[in-house]
Amino acid sequence: MEFLKVRRSDRLIDMTRYLLERPHTLVPLTFFADRYDSAKSSISEDLTILKRTFQARGTGLLETIPGAAGGTRFLPYILKEEAQEVVNKLIEEMSSDTRYLPGGYVYMSDLLGSPATLRKIGRIFATQYLNQNVDAVMTIATKGVPIAQSVADFLNVPFVIVRHDTEITEGSTVNVNYVSGSSTRIEKMSLSKRSLKPDANVLIVDDYMRGGGTVGGMISMVEEFDANLIGVGVVAESTAPNGRKIGDYTSLMRVDAENNTVVSQPGNYIEKIFN
Amino acid sequence: MEFLKVRRSDRLIDMTRYLLERPHTLVPLTFFADRYDSAKSSISEDLTILKRTFQARGTGLLETIPGAAGGTRFLPYILKEEAQEVVNKLIEEMSSDTRYLPGGYVYMSDLLGSPATLRKIGRIFATQYLNQNVDAVMTIATKGVPIAQSVADFLNVPFVIVRHDTEITEGSTVNVNYVSGSSTRIEKMSLSKRSLKPDANVLIVDDYMRGGGTVGGMISMVEEFDANLIGVGVVAESTAPNGRKIGDYTSLMRVDAENNTVVSQPGNYIEKIFN
Repeated sequence: MEFLKVRRSDRLIDMTRYLLERPHTLVPLTFFADRYDSAKSSISEDLTILKRTFQARGTGLLETIPGAAGGTRFLPYILKEEAQEVVNKLIEEMSSDTRYLPGGYVYMSDLLGSPATLRKIGRIFATQYLNQNVDAVMTIATKGVPIAQSVADFLNVPFVIVRHDTEITEGSTVNVNYVSGSSTRIEKMSLSKRSLKPDANVLIVDDYMRGGGTVGGMISMVEEFDANLIGVGVVAESTAPNGRKIGDYTSLMRVDAENNTVVSQPGNYIEKIFN
Repeated sequence: MEFLKVRRSDRLIDMTRYLLERPHTLVPLTFFADRYDSAKSSISEDLTILKRTFQARGTGLLETIPGAAGGTRFLPYILKEEAQEVVNKLIEEMSSDTRYLPGGYVYMSDLLGSPATLRKIGRIFATQYLNQNVDAVMTIATKGVPIAQSVADFLNVPFVIVRHDTEITEGSTVNVNYVSGSSTRIEKMSLSKRSLKPDANVLIVDDYMRGGGTVGGMISMVEEFDANLIGVGVVAESTAPNGRKIGDYTSLMRVDAENNTVVSQPGNYIEKIFN
């Protein structure tokens, strides 16, 4: 009895870790049965406990797929209340005049370099696409990369990095010209040819959207690869769009940077996802 | 009795998640006691079980700090056997002629865009610096970023991104000239002035080291900030160093890219860390 109790504790702890490290991945019951040298019926009971706790704590959904090809799959999500807290915290951190940079730009590299913040942002966007079949997350170098990596981590899919320059280590590339919305200059972006398969479902993410030109360029890039655009998510958007050409997108914050002050308010995320 | 059993299971599952998401962070016992409305003695027992399982499964070390200011801290690590597997898998994936690029370069953007691979690489380097006081992880844009983010995630410290260009969104920057080892050209790199505090302990990571010029530049950057260099870790180094000026570093792989073939072998990591 004591031994059994220990075994269950051991299994629950290790299964939690195993599943958290492999979101959106189907793990067969037999895998766990073999791993812990336990009966499938015990594993089923474990999963019932895990499912209940994950739900009660707002950790995510533990799906159970019955049958011979079945198993369990962990889908991390964030609940409205916690998402609201994350957004409020971001807004609070962003609304600081020390972030103001000449030209109405905003310093946010510290936020994009904090693993704890990135984990929350990743979970937030992964929640939005919980039930959609995302094959890859796309972003543009440099500051979009941490966002893409975090979202991709929670969706457990690859991320690809579009670049402003063409680097030799990318091999052959596909290049796209786009109009930079804020400057009306023509700019170029490139993506390694090997990085996306035709028909892939692509989620675009970025740190900051001003005119929307860069995001527009990435949408053209998705088209150039004959891939499908699933959605666009940005951490912050500026409040001065003056003719943004992007249709549907999600933002966590709306940021106003003028006259040496930075003021931040909620973007459309909470309203869009939870209402 | 049934209720108590559920409570313990619930606590163990949620504590596992909570601790995994906050590596290297001291969590007071009272925090868990409040969170689960449980006696501190029960939480202590839970931690004993967690510690045993984490150790048995090679997940990491659960430190317990006694006393009023005490608590528990999770230090993720990787054991030699698993690290060896990760390195072997990387070598296998790298050793493909399809990765060869003109000029002896190697395509590895797919590996650097895979969350599962990055998680393993992050755990590997975090193990090396488990007991050292790292304050920040430094890398250079673009392909070093995913490595830095993964290592920083496991050490739970910020990461900072050095750039080849100076971007307006970085604010004031510190600039360093360096000799690119492979080309003997003089190049420039810059880092936002706000991103590092004096005396910070900095770990440098990058995806690929050829001549070592870029890493050398980052070492100069650490000096410019009056910060301390803790170590240098690269995922891959080329086998043709011809006069590399970097002293001590750790590499996971040594890669030979010549005559349209890519051959990979173990770097010095396993030998250095586990022997």
